[in-house]
Amino acid sequence: MTSKSRGDESLIIVMNSDADAADVAHVVERLHDIGAEAHISEGRYRTVIGALGDREVIQQLPWEAFPGVERAVPVLKPFKFVSRDFQQEDSIVAVGNVPVGGGHFVPIAGPCAVESREQLFAAAEAVAKAGATILRGDAFKPRTSPYSFQGLEEKGLELLAEARDEFGLPFVAEVVDPRDVDLVASYADLIRVGTRNMANFTLLSELGRQNKPVLLKRGFTATIEEWLNAAEYIYKEGNHDIIMCERGIRTFETATRNTLDISAVPVIKGLSHLPIIVDPSHSGGRKELVAPLTRIAVASGADGFMVDVHPAPETALVDGAQAILPSEFTELMGEVRALAGVMGVEL
Amino acid sequence: MTSKSRGDESLIIVMNSDADAADVAHVVERLHDIGAEAHISEGRYRTVIGALGDREVIQQLPWEAFPGVERAVPVLKPFKFVSRDFQQEDSIVAVGNVPVGGGHFVPIAGPCAVESREQLFAAAEAVAKAGATILRGDAFKPRTSPYSFQGLEEKGLELLAEARDEFGLPFVAEVVDPRDVDLVASYADLIRVGTRNMANFTLLSELGRQNKPVLLKRGFTATIEEWLNAAEYIYKEGNHDIIMCERGIRTFETATRNTLDISAVPVIKGLSHLPIIVDPSHSGGRKELVAPLTRIAVASGADGFMVDVHPAPETALVDGAQAILPSEFTELMGEVRALAGVMGVEL
Amino acid sequence: MTSKSRGDESLIIVMNSDADAADVAHVVERLHDIGAEAHISEGRYRTVIGALGDREVIQQLPWEAFPGVERAVPVLKPFKFVSRDFQQEDSIVAVGNVPVGGGHFVPIAGPCAVESREQLFAAAEAVAKAGATILRGDAFKPRTSPYSFQGLEEKGLELLAEARDEFGLPFVAEVVDPRDVDLVASYADLIRVGTRNMANFTLLSELGRQNKPVLLKRGFTATIEEWLNAAEYIYKEGNHDIIMCERGIRTFETATRNTLDISAVPVIKGLSHLPIIVDPSHSGGRKELVAPLTRIAVASGADGFMVDVHPAPETALVDGAQAILPSEFTELMGEVRALAGVMGVEL
Amino acid sequence: MTSKSRGDESLIIVMNSDADAADVAHVVERLHDIGAEAHISEGRYRTVIGALGDREVIQQLPWEAFPGVERAVPVLKPFKFVSRDFQQEDSIVAVGNVPVGGGHFVPIAGPCAVESREQLFAAAEAVAKAGATILRGDAFKPRTSPYSFQGLEEKGLELLAEARDEFGLPFVAEVVDPRDVDLVASYADLIRVGTRNMANFTLLSELGRQNKPVLLKRGFTATIEEWLNAAEYIYKEGNHDIIMCERGIRTFETATRNTLDISAVPVIKGLSHLPIIVDPSHSGGRKELVAPLTRIAVASGADGFMVDVHPAPETALVDGAQAILPSEFTELMGEVRALAGVMGVEL
Repeated sequence: MTSKSRGDESLIIVMNSDADAADVAHVVERLHDIGAEAHISEGRYRTVIGALGDREVIQQLPWEAFPGVERAVPVLKPFKFVSRDFQQEDSIVAVGNVPVGGGHFVPIAGPCAVESREQLFAAAEAVAKAGATILRGDAFKPRTSPYSFQGLEEKGLELLAEARDEFGLPFVAEVVDPRDVDLVASYADLIRVGTRNMANFTLLSELGRQNKPVLLKRGFTATIEEWLNAAEYIYKEGNHDIIMCERGIRTFETATRNTLDISAVPVIKGLSHLPIIVDPSHSGGRKELVAPLTRIAVASGADGFMVDVHPAPETALVDGAQAILPSEFTELMGEVRALAGVMGVEL
Repeated sequence: MTSKSRGDESLIIVMNSDADAADVAHVVERLHDIGAEAHISEGRYRTVIGALGDREVIQQLPWEAFPGVERAVPVLKPFKFVSRDFQQEDSIVAVGNVPVGGGHFVPIAGPCAVESREQLFAAAEAVAKAGATILRGDAFKPRTSPYSFQGLEEKGLELLAEARDEFGLPFVAEVVDPRDVDLVASYADLIRVGTRNMANFTLLSELGRQNKPVLLKRGFTATIEEWLNAAEYIYKEGNHDIIMCERGIRTFETATRNTLDISAVPVIKGLSHLPIIVDPSHSGGRKELVAPLTRIAVASGADGFMVDVHPAPETALVDGAQAILPSEFTELMGEVRALAGVMGVEL
Repeated sequence: MTSKSRGDESLIIVMNSDADAADVAHVVERLHDIGAEAHISEGRYRTVIGALGDREVIQQLPWEAFPGVERAVPVLKPFKFVSRDFQQEDSIVAVGNVPVGGGHFVPIAGPCAVESREQLFAAAEAVAKAGATILRGDAFKPRTSPYSFQGLEEKGLELLAEARDEFGLPFVAEVVDPRDVDLVASYADLIRVGTRNMANFTLLSELGRQNKPVLLKRGFTATIEEWLNAAEYIYKEGNHDIIMCERGIRTFETATRNTLDISAVPVIKGLSHLPIIVDPSHSGGRKELVAPLTRIAVASGADGFMVDVHPAPETALVDGAQAILPSEFTELMGEVRALAGVMGVEL
Repeated sequence: MTSKSRGDESLIIVMNSDADAADVAHVVERLHDIGAEAHISEGRYRTVIGALGDREVIQQLPWEAFPGVERAVPVLKPFKFVSRDFQQEDSIVAVGNVPVGGGHFVPIAGPCAVESREQLFAAAEAVAKAGATILRGDAFKPRTSPYSFQGLEEKGLELLAEARDEFGLPFVAEVVDPRDVDLVASYADLIRVGTRNMANFTLLSELGRQNKPVLLKRGFTATIEEWLNAAEYIYKEGNHDIIMCERGIRTFETATRNTLDISAVPVIKGLSHLPIIVDPSHSGGRKELVAPLTRIAVASGADGFMVDVHPAPETALVDGAQAILPSEFTELMGEVRALAGVMGVEL
């Protein structure tokens, strides 16, 4: 036998085995109050109520607080604008004059933190020559230990802007404080949200209200769904130029700094129209993993990658253990080009 | 508007946004083939099919392999006999003459591994005097490193049986090989399945076919649902005397050997009628955590706890770092009695 | 044979099996440059260098970027002021006139978010009468979905201050934006850093520079060491009044919203002098787990707990599924008092 | 200043801040008893003892059970024979006449479980034609639910042997019970240890004592170090023909069945001489992820991959959701060849 309802079933409400008819009626009534419909399945063990209607409205109510409700299982994803349901074709984000996504593959490279003019320019010159199309370098660094170097701040941004002019590469830099959004946006071509700030909704909202593109790193403990929700925060404020960046998640494995969740690339490609790149340096946390993880990134179908390159990693003030030398980056770019050729993407 | 169906909705099949009518019809037809019913909700983004009928039949089919299916979300749990739906009242398991569960609280103590007559008897005498009602001690040890001590085997079981006679405590011992089930069952009063074997279905089936009670440790990476499924394996073969044992799960935290998931106690109490105890020694992996985690176990509503007690932990061949001294156990039992009094359980 | 060195061995530098004498000499030389000493162990497989000296200096260098270095293993913890090494006796933090820590146990209760005068006052009156000594209630909420209620902002703080005057309870409220620290500090008696902001170092620094006590929730993916580092951020800016709050970590288990890491209580008590409380509501995420997890918190040796109490959870705009009723809170307080009596702490 | 010792520093013993001279002397004495040496570093906060000598001996003692010891940190890895320290050059394992490792790349394909002659032969013919060099297919299946299909047992092995003769492909099959090792070994060319049995040491030891090569899947919650320890179990019993297989680990992410830890490939290549392959089917658990994860496997430097191919996934009795069609496998092999060409490996 088959029965039918019309409407988006956005939530399944599973009742307790000892819920009574009044409990069911109460849930149904509340659904009707908010303009939704109910489909009730009465079983031997449980009654199950399918809630049909507008997901944003239905999913806001605390259904599990209702008498007799055991749990509420969402059927439709909570994000909307960043989903493939909303937009079928790939988004292409312009960083300066460099397109990212939709078949445009982007190598991003440079020092983790800007430490000095010499250090930045040596790295920038080398990565530009090797074929990077965007420069990385941070002026503000969020550090686990309060005793660590925290960045050159505005001076760092000025140096990055000089390097852009000198070597013709637009640059990406991190912002860590909502009060600095305007400052960073006035210099950078692409503003990065670091892994620790993926759920800093205050910062996301500010970024949604300015007009530079945003590179949104995955929180190292965020599910893919939460990460897309974070992108939705930026998108719904008006800024649609968002690039996702997978950088490893926290697991029980200790041989690597984080576990690169490379499956996130095809999963995001399925769920969303946004471009996605991979950060091999911060995933593995060790220089010898940078080359294999970069090759993997190309083969995964990602739209680019971002690596730390430092002229003298031993002297690096931040994350030297994972930085590669300019010469190693040049060699890596050869492998990247060969694999990108097989994958049919354009550098 | 409200619609209704009859039958246990045991699975929600969510179609892709580009699934067509033929894909939906195909799923529905297959449901009918196996005697189930379908309720179809047609939404703007997705069609969602509720499958109503026998869960064991419905959940066996590979719905996500069907054309147009995005995912299949189970509504009813996969286990049956061990659930509270199947049996409302608490099970009480008799270990020798010691009842466990349903308000009967059991302290289990003794050495991790049986090393010698002297070691075992010193520990057994002390824990009996302090008020333990079941003795622990292993004759077979699964060890991560092949270079570690693997147990005294049958000799160890003989010593345990002697200690039982001497001190009047039934004993629990681990089995690690399906070929040893009969041997262990011929000596022990309670047979333990260790964390590494929770999903050793071969072993579980053997244990389901003999008649000694089973202490089923949670796999350190098992969800509560998988753990109850493992109990179901034993139950459905005919052995209904099963005690669950929470012993910590694997997480990113490294300050403790495992993360004691104490919430598992009330969760299991809600989902199942089986007794559940806690192992503070193997959760924390450090002797100074044994006392606080034991107090926590009592307050959690667990039906007992199991701790490693060793007369000379420094000389222990297995897990000495987490063993407490007999004198420490005696002191701990005082605290346990006081808390058990507040919790209203009987030692 | 035994050899000896003087100085704190704060880092172990393990060389590769193919590192040569020059690589070792280079590491040693760099250690000398920064005022540290080296102890070299030459083995068959590896040379291992123990670095002796000031940990803050030694641990800043990127040792793993040096040629021939395989890995660098810290021996001493990176935090200092918040450690028991630095201060042996328990810190006692005064929240308004309520002491927390050092044997002073504090029940904190109230609504998750302030929604209206009626809702807040109904909850506050009930929890005050039942024996809570601090009121909770948020005016700013960080929400995963951009479509959710974000708080009443300053109006919420005004209502909380009114409730404090009416019912005599100091209150705790969350701050989510560094720009709001002064505002929240001008109203609240205790300022909460939420789990998503534990690593928001910008916010932590601001909180370290004002003089209201801080309740620092554990990031749901933070190790205990990272959490203590976050406390160190606040402490070193000058604010020493910090209370830690365990609220569950992210694991593979899905039966609970988070996994309450109750072992963190005794672990923190061992490593640090700061008080620590437990949040049973946000750990489990389900109302039926609040009472068992609160009992567990008392037995763990924590210095208090914080629960969501709402007069009508069904209508709650935030986290209704985990709120308990005022009547349930009253009953819970009876159990808390009985267990606290056994634990020897003072409510 | 620099001091020196000779000998492998295999363990660092960190004393408590309140350990006294007698505690230190006691540890040192015990080290001398077992033939090891000690290097003592006396710091302001802690004394740290480096233990020099044979790691298998030193790491067996329960140092954390000694008075005054805070923790013991291993410096050298616990495995030996499977490490690159022991053997520099890559091992090449012969499966029938197919070499695996050392530049020899192997595509393994076939049904997850053998269900019937028709099903197996249809799959085998297709994968042979497309270029697979080893056939997969199981006769014994460990299943989470006791209500699921458990395999055709010996009948399945006979069918696999027939398919081998017919299509010229050696085959791999799983063993789940130590009592079946001889049976499976009498048919199969390569014996698989499934993820749930990686720490079934009884089974590993049996496999170490027979002479067919072993494919050792990573436990979905095993660290890389534990996985190599499991290989050491087999190796030290005399069987050196071991291939590692990465198949995803358990994390908090729920969008995929497991999280493929692709970094494990380069990490294992660094630590061990054993070949390693990747299982894209069981990692992702969804058919649409098979192709991207296979491309990733090639780019990672793995020595092969193993995928589920089924002529009619909808009817599959096991894991249909992740099986691809023969036609999809053929297409995938084209991509694999192109990428393998770039990676310089031989199919």
